[in-house]
Amino acid sequence: MPPQDSFAEKLAWVQDSVDSLLCVGLDPDPSRLPRQLTETLGLEDAVSRFCLDIIDATLPFASAYKVNFAFFEALGRNGWNAIQTVSDYIPDTRIKIADAKRGDIGNTGQFYARAVFEQMDFDACTVSPYMGKSSVTPFLQYPGKAAFVLARTSNPDAAAIQLWPSDRQPLYLHVARQAKSWSRDLLGHLGLVVGATDTVALTALRSEFPRIPFLVPGVGAQGGQLSGVVRSGLDNDGSLLINSSRGIIYASEDVDFAEKAAHSASALNAEINRYRPASRES
Amino acid sequence: MPPQDSFAEKLAWVQDSVDSLLCVGLDPDPSRLPRQLTETLGLEDAVSRFCLDIIDATLPFASAYKVNFAFFEALGRNGWNAIQTVSDYIPDTRIKIADAKRGDIGNTGQFYARAVFEQMDFDACTVSPYMGKSSVTPFLQYPGKAAFVLARTSNPDAAAIQLWPSDRQPLYLHVARQAKSWSRDLLGHLGLVVGATDTVALTALRSEFPRIPFLVPGVGAQGGQLSGVVRSGLDNDGSLLINSSRGIIYASEDVDFAEKAAHSASALNAEINRYRPASRES
Repeated sequence: MPPQDSFAEKLAWVQDSVDSLLCVGLDPDPSRLPRQLTETLGLEDAVSRFCLDIIDATLPFASAYKVNFAFFEALGRNGWNAIQTVSDYIPDTRIKIADAKRGDIGNTGQFYARAVFEQMDFDACTVSPYMGKSSVTPFLQYPGKAAFVLARTSNPDAAAIQLWPSDRQPLYLHVARQAKSWSRDLLGHLGLVVGATDTVALTALRSEFPRIPFLVPGVGAQGGQLSGVVRSGLDNDGSLLINSSRGIIYASEDVDFAEKAAHSASALNAEINRYRPASRES
Repeated sequence: MPPQDSFAEKLAWVQDSVDSLLCVGLDPDPSRLPRQLTETLGLEDAVSRFCLDIIDATLPFASAYKVNFAFFEALGRNGWNAIQTVSDYIPDTRIKIADAKRGDIGNTGQFYARAVFEQMDFDACTVSPYMGKSSVTPFLQYPGKAAFVLARTSNPDAAAIQLWPSDRQPLYLHVARQAKSWSRDLLGHLGLVVGATDTVALTALRSEFPRIPFLVPGVGAQGGQLSGVVRSGLDNDGSLLINSSRGIIYASEDVDFAEKAAHSASALNAEINRYRPASRES
């Protein structure tokens, strides 16, 4: 079993044992689920079944799963039931990330952290930094858990906020520096969300923060360059979780969705591993 | 019945008919609920019962209710069930705000918006601007609904982000200007979250954005100055929703909690109304 009291050690253990930096993003959009599921099951059960089948199929190739809360919450009052079902199903030998983009001040933030870490037992949560230190630190109070703070996200229109006021002095860099200082002396581990679409930012952040794990969305459907991401992101012995959601889970929208997801995850993982420095094999 | 196809008109109708700018924040912390509830009911039912009793008691004094999702999500898989119960109970003659601080890009953002506006039928949602335009616009696609974008929040440590890089050129002002431009031509209504604790920001934002409703936290427990907030915030015919959570719902933590909450809401509403310009009475 992986170490449970240090997120960094668990991440290293999992990535080593699976030989994978791949994170599979679970974004179950009802309109893209195979009809065979939605026609025979209720919507909540179809969503859960779909995710469970994807997990089973991709497990040999994925070191992490990222559960996108929005798609579950859109189910309404039963949405969190489905999150719990999926979370419970992801084995402890993988990293479980709550992609919930939470962020609220002290008292409220503690309840958000309690939800994902105590009720749902995720290993990590994505967190928005806009409200400052007291919105991030509740997620950094748990030994063995991590907060992935949004720094530079992969969507093109994020630039108007995250690169403001100038390329030289961008908000995302200020946020990363602040987050680093907020995390000092806390029991949880700080991570950053850094999109694959801005390799300048990725390189700058990795050079300044060698020991912070990056969760990297924007590969595949969003078009980030994989080789540059892997090389810059792993520089200085940095660690990476490279997420792909739609490219894997909707590789087929038919009855063979799980098989095709496995194929797609296997191929992406192999491609990532090709770009990893040879030294790790020695 | 209030107008349903324009948030601004519904807000004006409700505030006029109740003679109140007060928003009651529902932050049901299990450790502060009256024992009479938690000892006789399960936790989920105690939380719902508490909120329903608070709503009943404060209805004559409140134009809006703000449901703080964190406290419900911390209940785990049944948390959203309780949100739905509370949301369904708030009458259509009041403004219902989902205080969820959501923010994620296009495809995901649409599912978050669907959750609060279609499944839960809230009138408005608080939204984090860090990921840019495509994280906010999904909440501005609904006629009759509003997105309250975080601009200047009431917690002291928010300054390290929101007043960066300088007092003259603070991020919160950039965010408000961006949000205004993002909302152009969309069917939903833009609002801003502006804390009571920074009256300089409140005054600056009201002077630049006369027609945007402000949701104002930080009165009471967080210590904002009420008279200044009301005067600056209502300048230029602006509209305000002034939120109080703990000062009302925990006015007593005993069996008389609802009665004391009513008393506290009534007193705060009367105080707010004292500071409103006399012209509205003519």
